[in-house]
Amino acid sequence: MPDTWTYYNGQWMPRSQVRIELGDRGFYLGDAVFDLFRTFGGKPYRVREHMDRFFRSLKYVRIDPGLSPEEMTALGLECVRRNEPLRAEMGDWSIWYAATRGLGDWRMLDAKPTVIVQCAQTPFGSFARFYETGAHAVIVKTRNNTPETLEPKLKHTSRMHLVMADVEARDVDRDAWPVLLDREGNIAEGSGSNVFIVTDGVLRTPTDAGILQGVTRTAVLEMARQLGIRFVEEDIQPYDLYTADEAFFSTTPAFALPITKADNRMVGEGKPGKVTRQLLAAFSESVGVDVVGQALKYRTSRSSV
Amino acid sequence: MPDTWTYYNGQWMPRSQVRIELGDRGFYLGDAVFDLFRTFGGKPYRVREHMDRFFRSLKYVRIDPGLSPEEMTALGLECVRRNEPLRAEMGDWSIWYAATRGLGDWRMLDAKPTVIVQCAQTPFGSFARFYETGAHAVIVKTRNNTPETLEPKLKHTSRMHLVMADVEARDVDRDAWPVLLDREGNIAEGSGSNVFIVTDGVLRTPTDAGILQGVTRTAVLEMARQLGIRFVEEDIQPYDLYTADEAFFSTTPAFALPITKADNRMVGEGKPGKVTRQLLAAFSESVGVDVVGQALKYRTSRSSV
Amino acid sequence: MPDTWTYYNGQWMPRSQVRIELGDRGFYLGDAVFDLFRTFGGKPYRVREHMDRFFRSLKYVRIDPGLSPEEMTALGLECVRRNEPLRAEMGDWSIWYAATRGLGDWRMLDAKPTVIVQCAQTPFGSFARFYETGAHAVIVKTRNNTPETLEPKLKHTSRMHLVMADVEARDVDRDAWPVLLDREGNIAEGSGSNVFIVTDGVLRTPTDAGILQGVTRTAVLEMARQLGIRFVEEDIQPYDLYTADEAFFSTTPAFALPITKADNRMVGEGKPGKVTRQLLAAFSESVGVDVVGQALKYRTSRSSV
Amino acid sequence: MPDTWTYYNGQWMPRSQVRIELGDRGFYLGDAVFDLFRTFGGKPYRVREHMDRFFRSLKYVRIDPGLSPEEMTALGLECVRRNEPLRAEMGDWSIWYAATRGLGDWRMLDAKPTVIVQCAQTPFGSFARFYETGAHAVIVKTRNNTPETLEPKLKHTSRMHLVMADVEARDVDRDAWPVLLDREGNIAEGSGSNVFIVTDGVLRTPTDAGILQGVTRTAVLEMARQLGIRFVEEDIQPYDLYTADEAFFSTTPAFALPITKADNRMVGEGKPGKVTRQLLAAFSESVGVDVVGQALKYRTSRSSV
Amino acid sequence: MPDTWTYYNGQWMPRSQVRIELGDRGFYLGDAVFDLFRTFGGKPYRVREHMDRFFRSLKYVRIDPGLSPEEMTALGLECVRRNEPLRAEMGDWSIWYAATRGLGDWRMLDAKPTVIVQCAQTPFGSFARFYETGAHAVIVKTRNNTPETLEPKLKHTSRMHLVMADVEARDVDRDAWPVLLDREGNIAEGSGSNVFIVTDGVLRTPTDAGILQGVTRTAVLEMARQLGIRFVEEDIQPYDLYTADEAFFSTTPAFALPITKADNRMVGEGKPGKVTRQLLAAFSESVGVDVVGQALKYRTSRSSV
Amino acid sequence: MPDTWTYYNGQWMPRSQVRIELGDRGFYLGDAVFDLFRTFGGKPYRVREHMDRFFRSLKYVRIDPGLSPEEMTALGLECVRRNEPLRAEMGDWSIWYAATRGLGDWRMLDAKPTVIVQCAQTPFGSFARFYETGAHAVIVKTRNNTPETLEPKLKHTSRMHLVMADVEARDVDRDAWPVLLDREGNIAEGSGSNVFIVTDGVLRTPTDAGILQGVTRTAVLEMARQLGIRFVEEDIQPYDLYTADEAFFSTTPAFALPITKADNRMVGEGKPGKVTRQLLAAFSESVGVDVVGQALKYRTSRSSV
Repeated sequence: MPDTWTYYNGQWMPRSQVRIELGDRGFYLGDAVFDLFRTFGGKPYRVREHMDRFFRSLKYVRIDPGLSPEEMTALGLECVRRNEPLRAEMGDWSIWYAATRGLGDWRMLDAKPTVIVQCAQTPFGSFARFYETGAHAVIVKTRNNTPETLEPKLKHTSRMHLVMADVEARDVDRDAWPVLLDREGNIAEGSGSNVFIVTDGVLRTPTDAGILQGVTRTAVLEMARQLGIRFVEEDIQPYDLYTADEAFFSTTPAFALPITKADNRMVGEGKPGKVTRQLLAAFSESVGVDVVGQALKYRTSRSSV
Repeated sequence: MPDTWTYYNGQWMPRSQVRIELGDRGFYLGDAVFDLFRTFGGKPYRVREHMDRFFRSLKYVRIDPGLSPEEMTALGLECVRRNEPLRAEMGDWSIWYAATRGLGDWRMLDAKPTVIVQCAQTPFGSFARFYETGAHAVIVKTRNNTPETLEPKLKHTSRMHLVMADVEARDVDRDAWPVLLDREGNIAEGSGSNVFIVTDGVLRTPTDAGILQGVTRTAVLEMARQLGIRFVEEDIQPYDLYTADEAFFSTTPAFALPITKADNRMVGEGKPGKVTRQLLAAFSESVGVDVVGQALKYRTSRSSV
Repeated sequence: MPDTWTYYNGQWMPRSQVRIELGDRGFYLGDAVFDLFRTFGGKPYRVREHMDRFFRSLKYVRIDPGLSPEEMTALGLECVRRNEPLRAEMGDWSIWYAATRGLGDWRMLDAKPTVIVQCAQTPFGSFARFYETGAHAVIVKTRNNTPETLEPKLKHTSRMHLVMADVEARDVDRDAWPVLLDREGNIAEGSGSNVFIVTDGVLRTPTDAGILQGVTRTAVLEMARQLGIRFVEEDIQPYDLYTADEAFFSTTPAFALPITKADNRMVGEGKPGKVTRQLLAAFSESVGVDVVGQALKYRTSRSSV
Repeated sequence: MPDTWTYYNGQWMPRSQVRIELGDRGFYLGDAVFDLFRTFGGKPYRVREHMDRFFRSLKYVRIDPGLSPEEMTALGLECVRRNEPLRAEMGDWSIWYAATRGLGDWRMLDAKPTVIVQCAQTPFGSFARFYETGAHAVIVKTRNNTPETLEPKLKHTSRMHLVMADVEARDVDRDAWPVLLDREGNIAEGSGSNVFIVTDGVLRTPTDAGILQGVTRTAVLEMARQLGIRFVEEDIQPYDLYTADEAFFSTTPAFALPITKADNRMVGEGKPGKVTRQLLAAFSESVGVDVVGQALKYRTSRSSV
Repeated sequence: MPDTWTYYNGQWMPRSQVRIELGDRGFYLGDAVFDLFRTFGGKPYRVREHMDRFFRSLKYVRIDPGLSPEEMTALGLECVRRNEPLRAEMGDWSIWYAATRGLGDWRMLDAKPTVIVQCAQTPFGSFARFYETGAHAVIVKTRNNTPETLEPKLKHTSRMHLVMADVEARDVDRDAWPVLLDREGNIAEGSGSNVFIVTDGVLRTPTDAGILQGVTRTAVLEMARQLGIRFVEEDIQPYDLYTADEAFFSTTPAFALPITKADNRMVGEGKPGKVTRQLLAAFSESVGVDVVGQALKYRTSRSSV
Repeated sequence: MPDTWTYYNGQWMPRSQVRIELGDRGFYLGDAVFDLFRTFGGKPYRVREHMDRFFRSLKYVRIDPGLSPEEMTALGLECVRRNEPLRAEMGDWSIWYAATRGLGDWRMLDAKPTVIVQCAQTPFGSFARFYETGAHAVIVKTRNNTPETLEPKLKHTSRMHLVMADVEARDVDRDAWPVLLDREGNIAEGSGSNVFIVTDGVLRTPTDAGILQGVTRTAVLEMARQLGIRFVEEDIQPYDLYTADEAFFSTTPAFALPITKADNRMVGEGKPGKVTRQLLAAFSESVGVDVVGQALKYRTSRSSV
């Protein structure tokens, strides 16, 4: 994998030279927030929305990155620009930017933050095949975070519970993606994705009160509005997913990934649904990239984020 | 601060040269478990109990460190031995050892783990004064993890909720330590400590079903048995802490730290309690170090873990 | 009671000859799902909606009845046709159809299902009087199922909790009907009915996320839309029922049954409400049967389902 | 399978002639309670304890079977006596006795109960192999009943949630047995079994507050006392099962079945544990039957309960 | 403070002469409900809405005040009329009316109620300054009531939990006002106030399912509709308050009080927001009183309710 | 009823002259704590235990009564002494003492407290008959307070939820006493009483973690120890009460009141149980008063607390 330009605490350097210190709270306490935007055909997509969410995360956890939203945005765009020569080989970028609370012991809340901006390859290899076959969604017993313990709207790096969800889904099907329920037993979200179903022509997705407020989730709803597809945001249970006509995950890298099986029940007719494909086509047109074709083309490579 | 010998993925090197890669799942996903034991007068304390707990954590999250308990123990002891020349200056060590799931994207569950063993200074500066004045325990609204979302008995690095608890406690009193409740409203634990109270001569502490199974917590109970102090493990509520005769935190670095105020209510007579002091004295004798005196002596220095 | 034609595992026979085997999982494990549609004046009502729900139940519990929806529908209609000669005596039918997982021990998940279709008399005797006096709704302490334990949208035969609710309601008033709350304390549903209230001219009913998705419930909402009555689906608490202007149960056999008392508080003016009566009149017109008059006429007879 | 003598509402008849009526509340509402005792070498085991629990269930649900405990006991013993000639072929009996609320519509709470007593073959085929290999326990997302909805101490036939647990466990491993958690995330019970673990030589099992009060569970604890094995009844979490030294299910038919894998983590050394084997040996001696040998001998036959 | 005319059990007397008996259930059991309306420029505001809510409270708790809504309304208006001479000095009235269950022991549910109507000064002193500086909202760990224990829509005098919330907020900031969460961790309400936020130009407030159904809350929403401000009623979490563009409390005495800080995070730009000021201006115009100016003018005086 | 000497804010006066002011926070906010001890034959019983609990309540809610425990105790004893001449007529006293936070608006947390000590007649009339017939315990849907909202160990006057429980129990049986469950569905306590059951000779009662820590509850357990009756404190569910051999309420006025019916299920043999009677006899002997005989003698009179 080529060595991309990466920003680390005020300096641009090759990614291979960036290293996190052992005493960084982001490492040993998971005390960091991050966000991620994608390029399509090299063009950054919805940077402002991602940046706003990043600064909401920062405010919530009270980390002051020492940079304004404008400065952070500029860094993200510069990252894209510096790495443009590598794009043809890599497909398209997922720009990951983060701030940890910095070096300090567990009582050191006012340390100097660590700020990172990197261009990672979009991980086509982890999802491209699902555009064709659909994914198997496995509802795991691991539950989503609650606002009482750790606000699920925060995009932080304390993600062990999502790792455990992933481990658990694989026990059912090595290729499955997990879906987490909230405390009441409603469908919350995937591990880094939002969940949509289609029932009787209506697009349905959980409200964004107890999940990450997905930028792509919003993009899907806006696209639905443009296409005249009715949608609701409401509590959804496993019953609704099992008995849906179609279903999909939305994610920043993939936009919409069909779900064709859920807990070993066939969803709809067991193949990517009509509404899902309609949304993918419209999205591809809007960003000027055949997102399915691109993913299938680059599927053999692997990214680290 | 002197540069201690540190083990990193098979090699011993100065701590300043160890750096975590950006793509390490331990960094960007909090996908790591760790543990920690202390030396007293340079002698490792309860290494086996800490090592057992570390391997229970590893089994739970399904990280295979590629080392047996005996090999990990040997690394811990070698760390102490290599750094012995620096001990006089630093006081005593907290040996922190961890395994991350290694380099890989979010679907890479079978990566090659990252293993680290380091000797950090025991953070006397963060607690020594409380031996004399007692700490202010603030019960925060941030709740402890639950087994449904993330098993509280695991010693992992996804600790953002504990950081938020710490942030919150400081809003009441800049010097306060947080206490977290479980979902039912019982007292669970501090952020890295266990909680004890004394009522009518009986030592009381929450059962270890929903908290970290503190090795020092067990040591306190064993010491109580030796001293003929009655104790119970049971559900405890804020009411019990407010109205206790005395209270303390147990931690690996400090053994027992008096609590003299809880949510601005004076605990007992507002000074370190008799049973707490008795336990500290007996413990000091058993490890051959005056733990209070040592902490007060080294309180000016600061460690990074 | 006359002996109706009944379908049992591929054969039509008099109901009195149908008998369930001891080893049928439907009997000793409650491992069965069912559904029910009514005739009005002999004409089947909303068969497709009931059949769809039945097949959603089957999919959820993973029982394959070995019959397509079209085949099951045909059986239901044939049941009506075969029993038409008895209708004058019986009033109108409630067609009950079910599938158990069949004969087998508790580990036998792939047994040959038992399929039943029967025409039972609509149980006018159990509700007719309430059209005139209104029912007493007693909110019981027995709670509704949750998706975590057993999906309340499923129409299964494991209904002991509803029996207990009924037992409990009778301790307050021998003639009362129970209302169950969900885990959060919201009104969920009756035992086989949905609950509606009217407040300031607005028809209000719980969302269908945690209850049986009543076909009649939907019919009531559609009727309200036609009549220009505003309605909302939302969380409702006992307070709302006690202080409503009027209230009613909706059920497949009765359409809408007035509630005039709730936990011994008079609802509205203590008699069937204006909106309730308006809905009943419009419904009667739409199905061509005076549903109130019919029920009062047949109230003396008793059905077994 | 031979046709055993069965008691049905006052009469003894061959099991094949017993059939439940369609209108029996036990069939279409799951409105029935039952219990089960075993013979060992033809000798009934702990009949009184099972009978007491049956009458507690009856009292709770308010079904009056019209028979005293003494009369029910006599029927159970008569069942054994009548079927003694068949025992050599079948191995040993599981005597299943039940009372439904009888024939009647959903409001008919004072119907004439249906009472059944039958001798079923002990289902050796479903568990015998686990004495040798150990079972795989899969902790499912389906939760156990709660006292609020349906008292888990009741032995009723509304068991669809247990069926769903079984379905779910098989998605992980076709041969797995499910373990259900309670609402708080503690281990509750299997589907018809209790769960035991051994940690550091101590036998641990959930308290019987939220589970079926297993007669065999009590027998295990009594046996442990006799053997000088320490035991505690307390809240246990998945962590404890994963990290136990050994584990087993207790059931009426099998006494104790080793668990050697839990959610794909190896339990202990992955083979039947020492304490488990000790308990099995002592139990075999006490009932005068080599329970393991008997089960392995009869494993090829299948029973319907 | 001047001695206002007060109604007590059928008589008008100076407030100083009214005294509650020791044996009044309203005193020693908190067994009373009340309500409160304000005058603006001496003119009663939304009396009917407040009176309706009072009678809903009475019905819920089953206290019959022995007076019709019309009679209670007349008493409220008479109170205003009798005290008109004192208004110039006092600013404007908050008319507080209540009914206790009367004199009787704890089993005496059918005692003769105690009925009170009093004119208290609007407590300008407790809130006037916040129109200028904004209030600090502190989210406390004390949770709001639930319908299971005590219906939060009831306006009763058993308010110790709100007192504790107030005590707790002061531990963070002596001048802070508390905000209570519901059981799920959503924002519920203040202690006697409702909470509003503004995000991207949309006014957002919790649904009124689990809170006091504020008459002023409704007035705010109606005012927003008139001004063309979009609004939603939905679940809101602390994250939303921290990251809002502006926020305010609504209360009967103050209409809308800006929130400029929440848990030490600056809300919006840290000063009263544009929408808040717009609503205040429009409300002032509608009631013919400059509510901000009036409060600032009378801020030095103190009322007892 | 004779006019007893009562202490009110520093003065002794006839009870009829004490009156609470309208603006007292104890009246309009339920912002007060209290406690209660009894005399037996004129001799105060366990005054210290009741006084300790009162001061724990005060500390929790942060009301400083301006009197030391010794001074409060002296007031209580003086109350008994002053009223001794009336005792022959009244039977025995329940000494009720309380502190409200005093006069002040809802933000006035540091007002001057109101302190009251009164001698009320022990309310024999409300319970005497149950010594003979046993009480009917009705488990209500109203749940007990939780530590999150309002600590159930506090003895405060915000008791509306207990009033609602009482109202609800009467809907089942005019003479019933309510039993409240905790949030998990365990039996918590009665409205002012603790609950005990006897199963197989073992006395069982809920732990005192989520209930009022009854002084009489402790007295019962101590008495049991003296009499050699085994007892456990543990979670108890309705099932346990329904199927118990005997049951009783403990209260300060009555010591132990038999329960002979629970939710219309006969408890044991439907008459006061053997262990209950044994405890009552032993208690009578220990206090030198035949508590049953005394209650029956004075049952016709009525007290106001």
